[in-house]
Amino acid sequence: MALIVQKYGGSSVADAEKIKNVARRIAETQKKGNEVIVVVSAMGDTTDELIQLAKQINPKPEERELDVLLSTGEIVSSTLLAMALHGLGYEAVSLSGAQAGIETDASYSKARILRIEPKRIVKELEKGNIVIVAGFQGITSDKDITTLGRGGSDTTAVALAASLKAKICQIYTDVEGVYTADPRLVPEARKLDEIGYEEMLELATLGAKVMHSRAVELGQIYNMPILVASSFSDKPGTIIHGGTEMEVRNRVRGIAHDTNVAKVTVVGVPDRPGIASAIFEPLSKANISVDTVVQNASINNITDLTFTVARGDLEKAMSLAKPIAKSIGAKECVSDSTLAKVSIVGTGMQNVPGYAATMFRTLYEQGINIQLITTSEIRITCIIAEDRVKDAIKALHKAFELEKASI
Amino acid sequence: MALIVQKYGGSSVADAEKIKNVARRIAETQKKGNEVIVVVSAMGDTTDELIQLAKQINPKPEERELDVLLSTGEIVSSTLLAMALHGLGYEAVSLSGAQAGIETDASYSKARILRIEPKRIVKELEKGNIVIVAGFQGITSDKDITTLGRGGSDTTAVALAASLKAKICQIYTDVEGVYTADPRLVPEARKLDEIGYEEMLELATLGAKVMHSRAVELGQIYNMPILVASSFSDKPGTIIHGGTEMEVRNRVRGIAHDTNVAKVTVVGVPDRPGIASAIFEPLSKANISVDTVVQNASINNITDLTFTVARGDLEKAMSLAKPIAKSIGAKECVSDSTLAKVSIVGTGMQNVPGYAATMFRTLYEQGINIQLITTSEIRITCIIAEDRVKDAIKALHKAFELEKASI
Repeated sequence: MALIVQKYGGSSVADAEKIKNVARRIAETQKKGNEVIVVVSAMGDTTDELIQLAKQINPKPEERELDVLLSTGEIVSSTLLAMALHGLGYEAVSLSGAQAGIETDASYSKARILRIEPKRIVKELEKGNIVIVAGFQGITSDKDITTLGRGGSDTTAVALAASLKAKICQIYTDVEGVYTADPRLVPEARKLDEIGYEEMLELATLGAKVMHSRAVELGQIYNMPILVASSFSDKPGTIIHGGTEMEVRNRVRGIAHDTNVAKVTVVGVPDRPGIASAIFEPLSKANISVDTVVQNASINNITDLTFTVARGDLEKAMSLAKPIAKSIGAKECVSDSTLAKVSIVGTGMQNVPGYAATMFRTLYEQGINIQLITTSEIRITCIIAEDRVKDAIKALHKAFELEKASI
Repeated sequence: MALIVQKYGGSSVADAEKIKNVARRIAETQKKGNEVIVVVSAMGDTTDELIQLAKQINPKPEERELDVLLSTGEIVSSTLLAMALHGLGYEAVSLSGAQAGIETDASYSKARILRIEPKRIVKELEKGNIVIVAGFQGITSDKDITTLGRGGSDTTAVALAASLKAKICQIYTDVEGVYTADPRLVPEARKLDEIGYEEMLELATLGAKVMHSRAVELGQIYNMPILVASSFSDKPGTIIHGGTEMEVRNRVRGIAHDTNVAKVTVVGVPDRPGIASAIFEPLSKANISVDTVVQNASINNITDLTFTVARGDLEKAMSLAKPIAKSIGAKECVSDSTLAKVSIVGTGMQNVPGYAATMFRTLYEQGINIQLITTSEIRITCIIAEDRVKDAIKALHKAFELEKASI
């Protein structure tokens, strides 16, 4: 008898009919002789609706209260799912994050799981129950409710799977798996049968919305295989697992893109120690996450410093950077919010020359100007104009022959 | 510094504006130098909407799951109320029933409070917080969520007030207090400044919808003064308190009525031991609550047995009673669902003759036929045709001079 953890996202449980459909899938899994733990998100847009309601009452709701409020969304869907399973004649019980023993720190709205005390879950499994756990939430040592922030339910699922040594963690969502590129932009995009944790991490952080990077990271640490598949079909999905078990494939695995990119350039910066920290510390204190940072080679001790931020942060970032630029003797401070990131990702790129050259040439042939370049060991990212994203991805997909399962 | 427990019903927190209004009232109470605990119901029709949602998924949802589902309604309103108080610059914290230490038995959907462990509440009060407690819910020793059933939030409020030895428990609702009769039927009806627990209990059980009898009972046991007043006005309301402190008033306090009444008569019952139990045990097993039971004097060992049930139970009651009537040799089984109860209530009626006579004469003068009569020490109830209820109440209100504050 294998233990399987399944997670169903908000779109998979958006209404009564969809909840019943999910219940049938869960029932099937148990019928095949498995023990099943299910982690569920709030129905459809519930979380956003609760946030709207809170903001009608207080434009800046306190995080502790907001967390309690939002945690009700997952509790509602978990009880409804248990009721749907009862309706099919299956034994099931819903547990809140607190009841499931998910202990977190007290960082409201973005709590981290400290440990899982799965006594109650184990007891319910032993009774023959399918255990439905409300995702996205936990409890502090002071018995206060917390939420885990973006991607929280994925994280709950992988953490439970790791803690209870499940055979696999299955993430059911509204897409059929991880694709070589966004299928809405590239019709030739191909669903991957498998992908390594690191590759998935790069794709997840870079804007492939399939799964949150935090949950992938947790899967990597505990070497927990994760299946990403659709809750609306029976297609096999994509398995995310340990790269060590896989052959090193000398190729690109996928192309990620992200259009939520704005650029700030501080022009004519005197090149002396302390300049970068003078600029970035105030941004960090203002809770603005700086993504890419590029500093040009200095000519006559004058350089340009460019960094990217999420578009929503651009105005605030400029208002902070402008007076600093002035105070350090920079020439000016300019911005551009019509940018996008395009990245090629693949462990097979490690220590293999030629990928960057192919990427740059491909973009050049499309007449696409590269504004910034950053790389990691398994990724190359170019920042380009937003209106050329589709052309860039299509051309790169073709250049790296991603439509083919193997080359 | 006095401790005050306030309770706000669902109609008082039905939307964002109403929640802000309630927050202002709570803030006022604290500003006057009181410590404040607030018990809150779910917003407007939330509970009914959640039940509807559950029934879409499973027409007979399991009670444990339904309780968890329904408990979210009060959690939502309690967090929103805390946010509203923050918006006014007040310190406030919301607590679920579990966090507030409300321990109950495991009778899902109608749990009884076993004890209150108010450690957390006390800690939050000491920090200067207004403490908002989600009403209607508790937790079992196994850490399962329960709900307290009808009138649950009133019960939470009175139980907390008793446990923490509050000065008073204030129940804020959409009526201005307890009236001598339903003001919608009797324009002369007068709001009472005070009423005894026992009188209120008779009124509460008999259909005056102001407050649930269970909470009144708890108030009586712990001798906790309860104010019933409107959350939409500043009028003084009605104080429910110990009858011992009040003069014995030789008069009727109020008139209650209830139109949810149906009657079953088993005609021609052989008058021998065991007949009543043969009829009522199956009804009790079917969870049908039998209200009034009247058995006529037996003539030639043949009698008629009449009982009343809620209208929703009539069909089921008849389907059970008919075969039994046949098996015990009764002549027939007939029903009437167009009935109503009208009661006069008052501790001043105890041991004072003449009230019953006045009531019967008054109804007679209106040409109203009395179908059944039952009494308690402080109440006389007549069952009459539903379409004569208004006439009956108006006439009785006049006959007992209830429009006058004192006689």
